Amino acid sequence: MHPDNARFTRASDARAAIRAGRWLTHTSGLAPANVQGNLVILPAAQASDFLRFCQANPKPCPLLAVSDVGSPMLPSLGADIDIRTDVPAYRMYREGVLCADGLPDIRSLWRDDLVSFVLGCSFSFEHALIEAGIPLRHVAQGRNVAMYKTDIATTPAGPFHGPMVVSMRPMKAADAIKAILVTARTPRVHGAPVHIGDPALIGIADLGKPDFGDAVDVRDDELPVFWACGVTPQAVVMAAKPSLCITHVPGHMLITDLLNSELPFA
Amino acid sequence: MHPDNARFTRASDARAAIRAGRWLTHTSGLAPANVQGNLVILPAAQASDFLRFCQANPKPCPLLAVSDVGSPMLPSLGADIDIRTDVPAYRMYREGVLCADGLPDIRSLWRDDLVSFVLGCSFSFEHALIEAGIPLRHVAQGRNVAMYKTDIATTPAGPFHGPMVVSMRPMKAADAIKAILVTARTPRVHGAPVHIGDPALIGIADLGKPDFGDAVDVRDDELPVFWACGVTPQAVVMAAKPSLCITHVPGHMLITDLLNSELPFA
Repeated sequence: MHPDNARFTRASDARAAIRAGRWLTHTSGLAPANVQGNLVILPAAQASDFLRFCQANPKPCPLLAVSDVGSPMLPSLGADIDIRTDVPAYRMYREGVLCADGLPDIRSLWRDDLVSFVLGCSFSFEHALIEAGIPLRHVAQGRNVAMYKTDIATTPAGPFHGPMVVSMRPMKAADAIKAILVTARTPRVHGAPVHIGDPALIGIADLGKPDFGDAVDVRDDELPVFWACGVTPQAVVMAAKPSLCITHVPGHMLITDLLNSELPFA
Repeated sequence: MHPDNARFTRASDARAAIRAGRWLTHTSGLAPANVQGNLVILPAAQASDFLRFCQANPKPCPLLAVSDVGSPMLPSLGADIDIRTDVPAYRMYREGVLCADGLPDIRSLWRDDLVSFVLGCSFSFEHALIEAGIPLRHVAQGRNVAMYKTDIATTPAGPFHGPMVVSMRPMKAADAIKAILVTARTPRVHGAPVHIGDPALIGIADLGKPDFGDAVDVRDDELPVFWACGVTPQAVVMAAKPSLCITHVPGHMLITDLLNSELPFA
């Protein structure tokens, strides 16, 4: 956690600082009671296929909100949210190629055919796991979670298709059972795991070599537990090479007014 | 399933036949929508310790009902239930020694200090698993479920103590995750599993050699999933050698008016 993150416990305060350009770093620990979201912005020409892709693949692509075409507002996530200014850092891709990284706002890029998608992120379910007393090794070790490409196919929609990416957290069996029950309560932030146990059964050759993030040990008395990961839609969108795509910089999320505590009932 | 079991789809019809001595065999498949229960009858002198034991160990000992001292009725399970006649076959133990097996009723044994305990049984959660589309190998193969003594200690109460007995069902990972979610909804019939994966971690040396029931294969793409088992209280009670104990004959259960479909909300 950033040493100053404790300054902003309210979502509206955190967003105001981000909007004013006074907060340009990652959002881990900011407004900890609030749901944070991944951002994908696409032209309307691709948006309906991407919406169908998310609908068909809710575990890797749990949609929290979709904007009106051309509108930068997301009123269901917060009355004042302007997606052009309310994320600390943006990336811009053209035809799948990264063209700008770390943009503080996207006002100059905005077009009246853009559609914003906000997807749930694992910060919310990790919060629930920790609240349930389940230790998370990557958190204890200050590492990023380990993520792997699998041979689990997503359901394609238009140009969007590709394998599911998963995150892995090692747990003792009793904690794994509890973690399945805890995360199943929040389908809007990836829901229950997609796999448990032998990684080879989902096409992962070596847990010690994650495709993204950092490796962590799996001890003899633990099982690896695998959740669908928000990296899946990012990889799928890049592979489809849309004319324009804008995302957040990893870890630099949209802070919403939704509460983690309300997600099981939302 | 007994070929005639389909004759009695209503609990009250099945109980009437049992009460009249027209049904003396096992109850698998009888009144399939209804919850069936395990029976333990103890003198009042031991009953309060056994009640505390069940309260402290709800996974192996999920109490559906406890009678008043001396009363053979269990109105919360069915207005007409008389526990002296409504089970197809009984066993009677003195000081932990089996003295009578297959008794058709226990009217002549009844005393005004006896207390009846009815505990949930895995018939109910297996029904829920099958409804959820999860194959159960022992059911497909017409075998009894495999059961094992573990090194998981129960919480003792008075003379009642001993290791937890578990039942094991092999499943693919995706079905295991689903099975955890399905069975967690019914804590009154053992609830979520107590272990998944490596049997050695709970003191089971060889899955091929169950302590009770029949062995089934665990395939390479499957995990063994372990639930607390109703054999636990039976073993614990026998080891405590109460002056008198009456139980059902295994598989010859009390059919209640509770519905399996209502158990998640009961």
